[in-house]
Order: sequence, then C-alpha cells, then structure tokens
Amino acid sequence: ISSKLPDIGTTIFTVMSKLALDHNAINLSQGYPGFDTYLYLKDLVDEYMQQGYNQYAPMSGVPQLKRRIASKVLNIHDVEFDPEEEVTVVSGATEAIYAAVTATVRQGDEVIILEPAYDSYAPAVRLNGGIPVYVPLNIPDFSVDWQKVRDAITVKTRLIMVNTPHNPCGYVWTQEDLNQLAEITRDREIYFVSDEVYEHIVFDGRKHLPLLSHPELREKTFSCGSFGKTFHITGWKIGYCLAPRPLSIEFRKIHQFLTFSTSTPMQYALAEFLEDPSRYLFLNQFYQDKRDLFCEGLEQTPFKFTPSQGSFFQVVSYAHLSNEGDFDLAIRMTKEIGVASIPVSVFYHDKKDHKLLRFCFAKEDDVLEQALEKLQKFT
Amino acid sequence: ISSKLPDIGTTIFTVMSKLALDHNAINLSQGYPGFDTYLYLKDLVDEYMQQGYNQYAPMSGVPQLKRRIASKVLNIHDVEFDPEEEVTVVSGATEAIYAAVTATVRQGDEVIILEPAYDSYAPAVRLNGGIPVYVPLNIPDFSVDWQKVRDAITVKTRLIMVNTPHNPCGYVWTQEDLNQLAEITRDREIYFVSDEVYEHIVFDGRKHLPLLSHPELREKTFSCGSFGKTFHITGWKIGYCLAPRPLSIEFRKIHQFLTFSTSTPMQYALAEFLEDPSRYLFLNQFYQDKRDLFCEGLEQTPFKFTPSQGSFFQVVSYAHLSNEGDFDLAIRMTKEIGVASIPVSVFYHDKKDHKLLRFCFAKEDDVLEQALEKLQKFT
Ligand SMILES: CSCCC(=O)C(=O)O
Ligand SMILES: CSCCC(=O)C(=O)O
Repeated sequence: ISSKLPDIGTTIFTVMSKLALDHNAINLSQGYPGFDTYLYLKDLVDEYMQQGYNQYAPMSGVPQLKRRIASKVLNIHDVEFDPEEEVTVVSGATEAIYAAVTATVRQGDEVIILEPAYDSYAPAVRLNGGIPVYVPLNIPDFSVDWQKVRDAITVKTRLIMVNTPHNPCGYVWTQEDLNQLAEITRDREIYFVSDEVYEHIVFDGRKHLPLLSHPELREKTFSCGSFGKTFHITGWKIGYCLAPRPLSIEFRKIHQFLTFSTSTPMQYALAEFLEDPSRYLFLNQFYQDKRDLFCEGLEQTPFKFTPSQGSFFQVVSYAHLSNEGDFDLAIRMTKEIGVASIPVSVFYHDKKDHKLLRFCFAKEDDVLEQALEKLQKFT
Repeated sequence: ISSKLPDIGTTIFTVMSKLALDHNAINLSQGYPGFDTYLYLKDLVDEYMQQGYNQYAPMSGVPQLKRRIASKVLNIHDVEFDPEEEVTVVSGATEAIYAAVTATVRQGDEVIILEPAYDSYAPAVRLNGGIPVYVPLNIPDFSVDWQKVRDAITVKTRLIMVNTPHNPCGYVWTQEDLNQLAEITRDREIYFVSDEVYEHIVFDGRKHLPLLSHPELREKTFSCGSFGKTFHITGWKIGYCLAPRPLSIEFRKIHQFLTFSTSTPMQYALAEFLEDPSRYLFLNQFYQDKRDLFCEGLEQTPFKFTPSQGSFFQVVSYAHLSNEGDFDLAIRMTKEIGVASIPVSVFYHDKKDHKLLRFCFAKEDDVLEQALEKLQKFT
C-alpha cells in the first residue's frame, strides 16, 4: 500500500513519552496534566451512565452542553452564538481541526501555517489535497510577522491556521494581531481554523482574545476548543467548534461522517459541571503559579527563556551553550538527566533547529521541583 | 462557503428520531438499543475514572484492550493479529471507516459500494476525492450479484466497501461470497473496508464470516468493528480496526490526525469486560429471540418479509399494497400509526424506491409488542 503521508513516522509525543518511561525520567514532553480531574466531574459521568445515558448523543451534541458552551463565550467575550445551530460537540479538538480543514480545503488550495505549528495541521491540509504554505513566527518571541503573512497570501489561499495561546511557544495573540489578520484578509474568501484549546490558560493579566471576538474575523472562523486541557481530562476526548451558521452547516456534514457523535454520559456530565464558571476561570492563576514555580527554578539553570504567556508549556533556548541538535539533546537529557522534553524542531516542516526545547509544566509542584533539580545539573 | 457535500442534508436518523419524538411514536428508526448496558461495565468505567485513568490513551489504543480484541478474533475465527501492531482502537466504527477510506483512496480512485449502503460510505469516499461506483444488491434477498461487481471493476478501482451482516437488509455473507470477492480481485491492488459492526448478531445457526477469515482477503482488508452494538453502548463511541501491518501503519497515520486517541477509562473498562467471552457470544440468541418475536407479530400485518439473517434490523416490503413513496409512508406511519421506521430508499444514492421500510428490533419486548399492535392496524 502506498502511503499518503510517507514522511509521517511515530509521533514525537509517543516517542518521548515511551523514552521517559523506559529511562524512568520525569515526563515533561507530551502535554497532559500529571494530576487527576475533579471527583465531582467523575461522579457526574457515573451518575449519567447509571441513569442510562449510554446511547447515541445527537449528532451535533447534547443540547444542554451546546447551551453551556455558548453561554461561556457570551459571558467571557460578549459574543453570541446560537447553541442549536452554531455550536458542535466533537471527539476532541483534533477532530474539530480535521473537520474544519476538510470542510474548507479543496485540491490545490493553499493553507497558511505559522511555524512552529502543532503537528496535526499540515497532515489535515495535505490529506484534503491542500498545499501548506509555511510562514515562520518571529524568533525569539514567537510573535507574528504580519508582513510575511501578507506576502504569503495568493489567490489560492483558502485558509489560515491560527493557534492562540500558542503550542509550543506560549505566545498569546493581541488585539493588534486580530486587526492585522482582518486587514490582510479583508474581501477575500479566506477562512480561519483557530485552535484555542489553551483559552483558559493565560498569564500576567493577559486576556485570551479569540478570533470570534473580532466581528469581521468571526464570520469566517472555525473556533476549536477542548475540555481536555481545561478540566484535566485529555483522555476523554471531548472538544467543540463554534462557527457562524453557514460554516457550522458544512462543519457538521463532515463531523457526521468522521465520528457522528461524541460520548453521551460525558457530555451530560460536562454540561452540569460547566454550570459554575469558577471551574474554568480559576485556571489562569492555577497554571500561572506552576509557570512561576517552573521559571524560578529555570533561573538556576543555564537555559535562556522568556516566561510563557499562555498554555502549559515553557520553551527554553540552549543556543548559547551548545550546537547539539535539539532532538539529540532531548533524548540525551531524558537518558542522562532524567527529564523528557519535546525538541521544538519537530514543529517545523523542515525540522528547522533553533536549539529550543519545550517543557510541559502541567504537573504536581513536587514533580516540577524534582525536574528542576535535575535540570539544574545541566551544564 | 461552497459545500463539498452539497446534497447532504440532515441525516435520516435525526429526522426520523425527531419525528418519532414529536408525535410520541415508538422509535424503530435509528439503530440503537432501547435498553441499557451492563451495570458491571458502567461500574468498571467509574472505577478506572476514580483511579485516575483520565489522560490520553496511547494513540493506537490501550494495550490490554488491543490484546483482548486480538484474542477475540483468534478464539472465534482462528486468525492471528498482532495486538500491538495490527489492532487500533478508534472513536467508533464510523471513524474506523473514514480513516480506512482516507488511508487508501486518492483523487480519481473508484470505490465500489453495494447498495443499499450505510450513509457514511459515499461521503467518506467523495471527501477523499474518490468516485463511488454503485452496484445494486439483488432484490428481494439482498445477496450480492457477483457478475455485476466483476463488471464494475476497472483499472481505477481501489477499494470495495463490504458490510456483513448488512445494514439495512440483514444479509450475511457466505463462504462463497468471500471466495467470489477473492477471485475477482486477485492480483489487483484493490483493498476492502469491511463494516462488521453486527458481527455478534447473526441468526439461525449462521456464522459471521469476516473478510479476515479468508487468507487472501485478509491481506487487503481493514476490518471495522464496534463495541456500541455489541455491549449496548452506542453513545460511548468506541470501535476498532484490524488490518495487516502495512495497512495498519497507514490507518494509524490517519487516526492520529482525525482524533488521535479514544476514551481512556472506557478502554480500560472494556478490556476488563471482554475477559468473559460469554458477554458477546450470547448476543446471537438474545437478538434472535427479538427478531422472532418481531417477525411473528409481522405475520399479522399485510407486510411481506423474509426474516433477517443478522443485524438488529428487519426490512419489510409493501410493494404489493401501495405505490406510496417509502419516505412518505415512513412519515405517515410515524404520525398516524405511531411507529417510526427508516425508508430504505435513503440508502441508495439515487433514492431508488423499492417500497421497503427498515425496523430496528433492538428494543424491550414490550415495546416491540406495542409497536406490533400498532403495525397490525396498517392496511
Ligand atoms: C495528542 S498528544 C500531544 C498533546 C499535546 O497537545 C502536546 O503535547 O502538544
Ligand atoms: C449513527 S446513527 C445511525 C445508527 C445506525 O447505525 C442505523 O440506524 O443504521
């Protein structure tokens, strides 16, 4: 069988997590919380299972949950979405991204991807016959070079992939970024898939500005979110997509044939759990404390870094220390120092190596402290 | 936004289920059990959630579950699959089918679909640039006309979609069907996506013969199954795909970017639940009793039918009674008689109307009896 993705091997997340396990290293590579979700949320799932909510959910999601998602956006961003028509519950943000790309991209369409980029964007584009057009983010702050994005736009551009807060780099888009994006795409049929799974994890008083908060962008945006990162349930695989009605119609046609529907008892449980907004609003501070703890410890290492603005990742540079490849270094550090990370070069299509490593700080404080102690041995 | 699936409207399953609800009719349309799953299975999910199994499962599935799936196939069909490399757990058989089609079909490839066919096959093919080539099953017994399939094969044929036991018609493939398929595809690069979600629901001493039980077909088959139909958990969305190593490698590359992984606590629970084979082996008899009850009642109606060979569906004909369109009749029966069904024409790309209705008999006996009482009023 000839491969449609010949260059795709085992995902870096699997590779590094396995290496960490094999070498009994602290796993700060794959991005997932090292602590459990809420007892109350688990009990709610159990209750709904026991009550018999175990058959197909409606294709677009359980109405109660769609309403809660719409309310959340209304309360935080003052933007209205019709829960019945414009909110769709899916099996994780990965599905949301794949479905949105599939709904928009045709053979030969160009899709702008800002690099470093999460590893599912380009394959989703390529599998739909699209052509990824890569635009690098600025080094070292990972802000967007709007002139470069503007230059990358052609008559064939159909979609721009956006990710804020950014994985792996933690950059959080500003109002100026939204305005620039609106300006350079005005009067063009260009859509946006915005991966905002870290929407509730932003630091230092910043505000997450979703594309849907910009009236012009809103009309052309598939806004993809996930409960995995917000409620420490990455293994439940429940995400959502908000999009204006015409886009939601096309999105749902794809979702219907990708997975049809998503876990019924978990959707009911999440709807009830979302009643209390403090359950996600406290997350900024929760993760800021962890970022601060981690960054304070990093000060005692030779790495250079700017504290992450959002997400649960911290990128560090070792360019001033060594010329070793980042992939080699990540592997060596896992084996020799006992801390696993992700080499940032894997987020570039051409594996461009800026001598950067990504650490996930979504771990218990004592785990972070142990990891820092080990990292402080790095010279 | 211009649609990639302009002809796709609201799915018939949603339309009929809603109509049933609105008119307080008994819903024998959408295929799902009208009874709950096992207390023990629900308790297992709760246990694993409570123990903290709430983060990402491995991309290809929890090892324990992959081993159980491989054992099941070995025990029943005496065919070996490597659990680590050749079994992948996904978010329902719909995802398995979409991923397998995506792994194999390129722009311009032809895909043979035997009609009537489940409604996700053709969209999956079209979204991947493939061209569905429709071959009708024989009327009235829905067996395969192998001469017609042979005639449909061209140099462009890349895939044949197989479904046994068949939804909506209940036809179960014979050894002769497997042999014919092997013969007409010998020495061609033609793959098979086999939808076998009703593998444990076959009647009258028949044996479900998966494509993977045929040594030649096995090498080119993506075998798609689901726990939804087997354990009465259609709302949990957990399925699997067995395929030889080279095919599994490509399948996983797609799964990785469609959904990445599937519910962790539910996978662990299913692994443990699968320990006892009687939990799926009794299902044939369980549903045969329901089919018998339903067919005995149907004898008192003017419908013509042959008892279903497998699946939890029974198709009936009213061609000798009326010329009304099957869609119109299904709607009228829901409103006037109080029983919802699926018009079989929706499973034909050209909505060919053979005057057939599909009833789902996966319901409590008293619900089936009430439905039969109502159907007996039909003249
Ligand atoms: C789906 S596994 C990868 C998790 C993640 O988002 C990351 O580590 O970047
Ligand atoms: C995914 S809803 C449809 C369920 C089903 O398999 C059917 O009714 O045929």
